[in-house]
Amino acid sequence: MGKKRVMTPAKDVDLSSTKYKREVVQAPHLTGFVFRLFVRIIEAPLIGPIIMNILKKENKMDEILRHTVIPEEPMFKPEYPPQEMEPGVVVLEEDGRPEDRVESALKCLPHYDVAELWENSSASFRYWKIRDYAHAYRSRKVTPSMVAERIISIIEDNGRNKPPTPLLISFDAAEVREQAAASTQRFEAGNPLSILDGIFMAIKDDIDCYPHPSKGATTWMHEVRTVKEDAVCVSRLRTCGVIFIGKANMHELGMGTTGNNPNYGTTRNPHAPDRYTGGSSSGPAAIVASGLCSAALGTDGGGSVRIPSSLCGVVGFKTTYGRTSMEGSLCDSGTVEIIGPIASTVEDVLLVYSAMLGASPANRISLKPSPPCLPSLSSNDNSNALGSLRIGKYTPWFNDVHSTEISDKCDEALNLLSKAHGCEMIEIVIPELLEMRTAHVVSIGSECLCSLNPDCEDGKGVNLTYDTRTSLALFRSFTAADYVAAQCIRRRSMYYHLEIFKKVDVIVTPTTGMTAPIIPPSALKSGETDMQTTGWLR
Amino acid sequence: MGKKRVMTPAKDVDLSSTKYKREVVQAPHLTGFVFRLFVRIIEAPLIGPIIMNILKKENKMDEILRHTVIPEEPMFKPEYPPQEMEPGVVVLEEDGRPEDRVESALKCLPHYDVAELWENSSASFRYWKIRDYAHAYRSRKVTPSMVAERIISIIEDNGRNKPPTPLLISFDAAEVREQAAASTQRFEAGNPLSILDGIFMAIKDDIDCYPHPSKGATTWMHEVRTVKEDAVCVSRLRTCGVIFIGKANMHELGMGTTGNNPNYGTTRNPHAPDRYTGGSSSGPAAIVASGLCSAALGTDGGGSVRIPSSLCGVVGFKTTYGRTSMEGSLCDSGTVEIIGPIASTVEDVLLVYSAMLGASPANRISLKPSPPCLPSLSSNDNSNALGSLRIGKYTPWFNDVHSTEISDKCDEALNLLSKAHGCEMIEIVIPELLEMRTAHVVSIGSECLCSLNPDCEDGKGVNLTYDTRTSLALFRSFTAADYVAAQCIRRRSMYYHLEIFKKVDVIVTPTTGMTAPIIPPSALKSGETDMQTTGWLR
Repeated sequence: MGKKRVMTPAKDVDLSSTKYKREVVQAPHLTGFVFRLFVRIIEAPLIGPIIMNILKKENKMDEILRHTVIPEEPMFKPEYPPQEMEPGVVVLEEDGRPEDRVESALKCLPHYDVAELWENSSASFRYWKIRDYAHAYRSRKVTPSMVAERIISIIEDNGRNKPPTPLLISFDAAEVREQAAASTQRFEAGNPLSILDGIFMAIKDDIDCYPHPSKGATTWMHEVRTVKEDAVCVSRLRTCGVIFIGKANMHELGMGTTGNNPNYGTTRNPHAPDRYTGGSSSGPAAIVASGLCSAALGTDGGGSVRIPSSLCGVVGFKTTYGRTSMEGSLCDSGTVEIIGPIASTVEDVLLVYSAMLGASPANRISLKPSPPCLPSLSSNDNSNALGSLRIGKYTPWFNDVHSTEISDKCDEALNLLSKAHGCEMIEIVIPELLEMRTAHVVSIGSECLCSLNPDCEDGKGVNLTYDTRTSLALFRSFTAADYVAAQCIRRRSMYYHLEIFKKVDVIVTPTTGMTAPIIPPSALKSGETDMQTTGWLR
Repeated sequence: MGKKRVMTPAKDVDLSSTKYKREVVQAPHLTGFVFRLFVRIIEAPLIGPIIMNILKKENKMDEILRHTVIPEEPMFKPEYPPQEMEPGVVVLEEDGRPEDRVESALKCLPHYDVAELWENSSASFRYWKIRDYAHAYRSRKVTPSMVAERIISIIEDNGRNKPPTPLLISFDAAEVREQAAASTQRFEAGNPLSILDGIFMAIKDDIDCYPHPSKGATTWMHEVRTVKEDAVCVSRLRTCGVIFIGKANMHELGMGTTGNNPNYGTTRNPHAPDRYTGGSSSGPAAIVASGLCSAALGTDGGGSVRIPSSLCGVVGFKTTYGRTSMEGSLCDSGTVEIIGPIASTVEDVLLVYSAMLGASPANRISLKPSPPCLPSLSSNDNSNALGSLRIGKYTPWFNDVHSTEISDKCDEALNLLSKAHGCEMIEIVIPELLEMRTAHVVSIGSECLCSLNPDCEDGKGVNLTYDTRTSLALFRSFTAADYVAAQCIRRRSMYYHLEIFKKVDVIVTPTTGMTAPIIPPSALKSGETDMQTTGWLR
């Protein structure tokens, strides 16, 4: 009795009285033998559910999902009211040819004198942008085949590390050479397919890239699911001439944010090999951060593109849900997960994104996405698209980081933006962050479990890593009514965000609340669970 | 091991090889002490879940939801591709005034010479249609206040039955008199609001009708939820001049199909007082069938309008999901439930429906319903709207009834339709009916449980009927992943139905597979569970 809490309808919530509350995930940090024992216990009948209930209680999950009257009806997928076209943007044809979209995107970019930079740059290391490669290929200084050989030798070198620290889970040098030769030939014939022709990319192991298998970093997924063709996103990039080097390493089934991988070896952070890359798109971020590829595709349902991009110092883009097709990925039946690009610069993200975008037929019916558009940043355009930006910042959340160094650095970047372009900074409030986090884990967890259930029931579950099994034990404890309650919270969160976006154009926050964590040596063999630390990864 | 079943993608399923399989619900029939004991056991920790698992296994629920790879992504709410306008229809303005829509609907009806019928009818009993009342009021033969007195005296008589067999759960004679007097005055002033002015209607107890409480036939719902205004549908009808006689009896919380109600008494079938009305909209159907009101509003998520209408011999309409607003009803956060009209004739259903329709703001964003339309049946119109109808019949399903009398009668009706109008009969196949039924119970059950959870956790659960508690125990056993799997099945079912509707305009089936069951006297005090029989109610 007396457990019931009644929420005020979202539209009547007084945001001025919202207090930011730091919420730390309550869960043990375990590795090695104790971790393996813990997993056996939580998977056991009777005792397992009891432990899960304690864990959920500690984290207020039942309080939020079962004891709270949420006046909103459920929202299962993002619903957007009709939106006005923004000023200073170029609209892309969602149904058009990927090559044409890339061409339009290229025209949006500011002027870049590659030749001049090449002559006069004194930097010891500089990421080659897509336009650098394009210039090199077109001026016949370099061919895709030459680049392929360099990449192949590095991958093969990397493969000899002990313990293994693979960037790729599936790699076939001959197949890369073949793609590169075809691209080289197109350049020789003077017929490159687009600015992306001859650009090397890596694809996360949960997105189909023919002829590679898609294992999602498990040891068995390829045995029950055959790859017969490219995922839609990959196929669009291939049309533009992109060369795929293979399937990038990842946190098993995307169910973790460190990139720890006992099955194939844990990818190391290129900036500090004793540290995690972050995950789950560990390989894609590390491959881009090491300068090996211009870009990579990751998947992101809870930070899996953004976190490793942040920890590896590159640019990751979580696209709007439904904007990119999930067809041909392992996570094709969720309501939060997207495929998104990682690159060393925003401009490369923009080029890759313009090629791969386009909603699935089902999402065109249900989400009816407004036409995709890019900001016109070309020097011919005087609109100063950045100058009119209103930047929303929820300061107590922004500053709730593991070390103030992080928020200070982010503040510096914002100040720079304000000074250089005159963007306006606006203080905002985002209420119910704990509720949102709870709704999120229930949504993504249940959707993920649903697609794994038949194989788990078929005996494959014990072949997953202990980390994944911990997550699945939690996900199994969610009831169907919890799932529906989570969707009611989604409607509240959507309401708050749509209200915020009436006042600002973007919300800024440090992508991760901490820098890359050190990899405990004890976690290499059978993984680890450390939700308290990974909680900082947002 | 070896439990896994892989479904063929719906679009590749060969319907010609689909075999109809009769599936009988496996569950015990219990009343009285044994029933009460059973409920205590299934609510107990440890043993309760074990029994539920057996029940679910017997009914193949886990096999369908957990062991099956369903290639489709989830569809949480119905998604319709853009549809072509049908010929011979009149489009109604969803945003317009209800009175205007009723006016348009009236023009769609065939000619009806009320005066002539009144003079020459020799029938001993005839339902008064809305046009009968309209004629009587306008010709000053009868006033709404006169009708009110007759209704009030019947309701008050009925209230003296032992055991109680109430048609209404909330009734206030003074309030009815007041509404009737206002309507009478409008007629005297020559200003009726619409053809619905002075028409009496009953509202199911789970739809708000101010100033009545909404109890959903529970003993406590009104203590935790206050009614401050009419539900949207009710308010639209009130705008048209409808008079509401009170809140109609129902199966508690709509969670059953018999209409059994130990809290307030079980409504009797007007055609056979020893039999059930069917449910859950038992009161609304009985009130219309007894001739007391021209129409009533019920709610229907799994047959709750259609079943009692069928068993009481009146017309019930399950409107398209999202077409009517659920705002102001107890079931406002589901993905299957609708508010729908019950009346003695199709034409009255059409008039009431035209007044009440109009999607909620949220559904306008997410479902983007095509404009509502009515068939033009007026005698001035030569289009023979019925003649062009293609009628789809899945014969083995159609004939799978408790007694062939039912399918024979339905066939007779179809033959009449074919002969009189020349409709074409087309044989169809609806595959995966068991999967659809399973997905349905998971969806409606989980959504219902979600909204009841906070009060149940707060101690109100034990005050529900044993029947409801049995359902809730089942619903609690559904996992979040089960819910998502159910939505994947929904996408398959939607696909099959959209394909069928390319070939036919309607699907015909007996509404219920049996006639009204006899009420076991032992079930009056604490209800009963009899899913095997109620399974026939479809």
